[in-house]
Amino acid sequence: MTPHVTTGNPADLAATGAAVKAADRAHVFHSWSAQALIDPLAVAGAEGSYFWDYDGHRYLDFASQLVNTNIGHQHPKVVAAIQEQAARLCTLAPGFAVDVRSEAARLIAERTPGDLDKVFFTNGGAEAVENAVRMARLHTGRQKVLSTYRSYHGATAAAINLTGDPRRWPSDTAAAGVVHFWGPFLYRSPFHATTEAEECERALAHLADTIAFEGPATIAAIILESVPGTAGIMTPPAGYLAGVRELCDRHGIVFVLDEVMSGFGRTGKWFAAQHWDVTPDLITFAKGVNSGYVPLGGVAISAAIAETFATRPYPGGLTYSGHPLACAAAVATINTMEEEGVVEHAAHLGANVIGPALTEIAERHPSVGEVRGLGAFWALELVRDKETREPLVPYNAAGADNAPMAEFAAACKASGLWPFVNMNRTHVVPPCNITEAEAKEGLALLDEALTVADRHTTSA
Amino acid sequence: MTPHVTTGNPADLAATGAAVKAADRAHVFHSWSAQALIDPLAVAGAEGSYFWDYDGHRYLDFASQLVNTNIGHQHPKVVAAIQEQAARLCTLAPGFAVDVRSEAARLIAERTPGDLDKVFFTNGGAEAVENAVRMARLHTGRQKVLSTYRSYHGATAAAINLTGDPRRWPSDTAAAGVVHFWGPFLYRSPFHATTEAEECERALAHLADTIAFEGPATIAAIILESVPGTAGIMTPPAGYLAGVRELCDRHGIVFVLDEVMSGFGRTGKWFAAQHWDVTPDLITFAKGVNSGYVPLGGVAISAAIAETFATRPYPGGLTYSGHPLACAAAVATINTMEEEGVVEHAAHLGANVIGPALTEIAERHPSVGEVRGLGAFWALELVRDKETREPLVPYNAAGADNAPMAEFAAACKASGLWPFVNMNRTHVVPPCNITEAEAKEGLALLDEALTVADRHTTSA
Ligand SMILES: Cc1ncc(COP(=O)(O)O)c(C=O)c1O
Ligand SMILES: Cc1ncc(COP(=O)(O)O)c(C=O)c1O
Repeated sequence: MTPHVTTGNPADLAATGAAVKAADRAHVFHSWSAQALIDPLAVAGAEGSYFWDYDGHRYLDFASQLVNTNIGHQHPKVVAAIQEQAARLCTLAPGFAVDVRSEAARLIAERTPGDLDKVFFTNGGAEAVENAVRMARLHTGRQKVLSTYRSYHGATAAAINLTGDPRRWPSDTAAAGVVHFWGPFLYRSPFHATTEAEECERALAHLADTIAFEGPATIAAIILESVPGTAGIMTPPAGYLAGVRELCDRHGIVFVLDEVMSGFGRTGKWFAAQHWDVTPDLITFAKGVNSGYVPLGGVAISAAIAETFATRPYPGGLTYSGHPLACAAAVATINTMEEEGVVEHAAHLGANVIGPALTEIAERHPSVGEVRGLGAFWALELVRDKETREPLVPYNAAGADNAPMAEFAAACKASGLWPFVNMNRTHVVPPCNITEAEAKEGLALLDEALTVADRHTTSA
Repeated sequence: MTPHVTTGNPADLAATGAAVKAADRAHVFHSWSAQALIDPLAVAGAEGSYFWDYDGHRYLDFASQLVNTNIGHQHPKVVAAIQEQAARLCTLAPGFAVDVRSEAARLIAERTPGDLDKVFFTNGGAEAVENAVRMARLHTGRQKVLSTYRSYHGATAAAINLTGDPRRWPSDTAAAGVVHFWGPFLYRSPFHATTEAEECERALAHLADTIAFEGPATIAAIILESVPGTAGIMTPPAGYLAGVRELCDRHGIVFVLDEVMSGFGRTGKWFAAQHWDVTPDLITFAKGVNSGYVPLGGVAISAAIAETFATRPYPGGLTYSGHPLACAAAVATINTMEEEGVVEHAAHLGANVIGPALTEIAERHPSVGEVRGLGAFWALELVRDKETREPLVPYNAAGADNAPMAEFAAACKASGLWPFVNMNRTHVVPPCNITEAEAKEGLALLDEALTVADRHTTSA
């Protein structure tokens, strides 16, 4: 796939781009933004691992947009499937049986671990989390849900309350029945551990204590990202998820794994939980299920929880549950990933290309405190000092406090690399089917941009 | 547009339908349903106002699916626009400026009343309500939100708590800061009124009292469906919405109109509020904005509320905010509705075809207690007795208690009419561009099916 750069008279293109941006500024209200302080890039097109603007700049997408284009942009097989489905049947209410809806559910159920064989479809990740929580509450008859600090679960009321990052604060409704605890994260260990094994053991003890003091019989669910994504790609230590599974079993708590970001190939498996052979009761998914070509998310449901709603109506729904166009895109995406070995490719990239390169980069750059990840899912923890591990910018920094990260991001963009940046981290999360050559091109640009971060370290 | 019926060998078609249904039963978890007790119809295709199954049955869609296909199924202009956009650019993160996203926002802002000129896009109606509530809470610094009994606002945590029907009960979290009050509904007046004017006056007094006793300074928002939809299409009396606007102004309360169902032509105007020249502070929309061809919803935002988030970041978002494929479908839908006069057609249908026919039907059927509505948005209240107004089935009836309504719905389906049925009501909510001939065909089938309801009246 050769990336195209927009063709046409440069002055006309620039004028079009300016008009697109002007209409955006006049009428589009943007997520997570101060509306008067943003300057959104007008994008003209995209293909594979690249997108480009109206002014002749092309970007290598090391963010996969919001970590969703797992098969890159405009994959011809998926585009064709969307066009065919559009010609056949764009929409149909959730109450009917539809071929592509049935097939998407079957393909997903075939890939989930254990007996998670039923799929409730939503439009995105937040709605998936909302419904997983409702299922867990009604299945157990309990109210509380435990989630971790350093997490993101979406922005609807239940999902944002479960989230463990500052985006929760403005929408926090104290009484929502949510309790936050700490997950394992050796590099900044909440438990003062010095090895992965110790971190694992202490994190499980902390969770066991939290359960004991909250009251096991009050807890409906524990929800975790299998590998926390936006919060920093903290791959859990070997026994952690199995330990949580065991605690849930002991206390009759529903175990929900949020695989909205980590699912569908991102970590080099269909679902990240499969790295540790752990089967939760519910898996939430979205993003990679169809690379975001059409909005789609959902919950994969265990036989036991599905049984709860066999003769008792499930009290949840949405107009576009199992939307045919979205399901057709999922069918094509999953089949394409299978045919083209995209999941295996992501595993290969992690083990043989991205992982080794980042380790080598970390050694040379004083600003890189830690590299962690797997598959096409990596984080670089940027620090002022490798010894003290002081973050390059403070937690939740804004404005001048955040300048070092803003400069670093600007340097990436100026070089043609579109980075994923959050707090004091940059994530390397390209499409799972990025070629080795493209990955290496991006890693070289990243290497270069890190010299900007280096200037803000104590060694500079 | 001539509706196609599936062609092919009937035995092969039936086998395909059976396979679709079997895969559905194995893997698809359905909204609002007891999974083991449902028998979803396998649908093979759809066009215009019709859809059909694999067994040679065609249905005239008097429900517009879930009241979303305002331009019917498979409108060729919108299908073409989706196909073209799919070829150009399926997806892009919310942070960028994109031509179709800017254009969809502009076309929507052009149609909203007053200065509601900014659009925050979501995937559907519930997320729109969630974000409207968050905006109102942050804009006012207050927490409580008032909504009506007899309403539906969606199924995520905040939206389901605002809902005023039994679907709320299983997900109710008492402390969510929601207070329910009673809206105007003369036929079953909560205020013992006997005229529309009296109902209006008393409903406003009731709301004023509720505000006074809840504490005006604690109330962030009042959210109403301009014309409550699923709850029964209770067209508000003439001065009601203006009276609510006045109360909101007096107390600094944000006025949210939920036009997810009533918007985009359904009532014979772009937005139902325009019938009464009322401008709320926020309008939530979804469904008709692109007839549901691709999941899309959003919030139209007043200048004052947008200003609150000019320099302070808006703390909400979603991966697919302003999804290009969904926005392209909205652009094509709005332009098509404009070109083909669909909004005017809906008004004409209401005034000259559906309204008069239903009034005449009501006179002849002892089971029809009241007919109400406007545009392509009508409800028939079915009763056991016109004098006592006793509903044909009790509120929230299930199983045997609901048999009269189930029999009525089955009679409609057997005759080739797909009805919208809720509690003791049937709604007449066909596509807004249904032809007069099709509308008359459906009204005749409805007339016929009502004889089944008549058998359950006291006069039978
Ligand atoms: C782990 C996780 N859960 C849930 C969500 C929310 O998904 P959406 O933005 O589609 O609502 C996200 C989005 O980034 C996510 O990463
Ligand atoms: C008035 C109203 N608001 C909100 C919703 C929820 O929309 P969605 O099902 O797209 O979440 C609906 C759905 O029927 C509705 O009618």
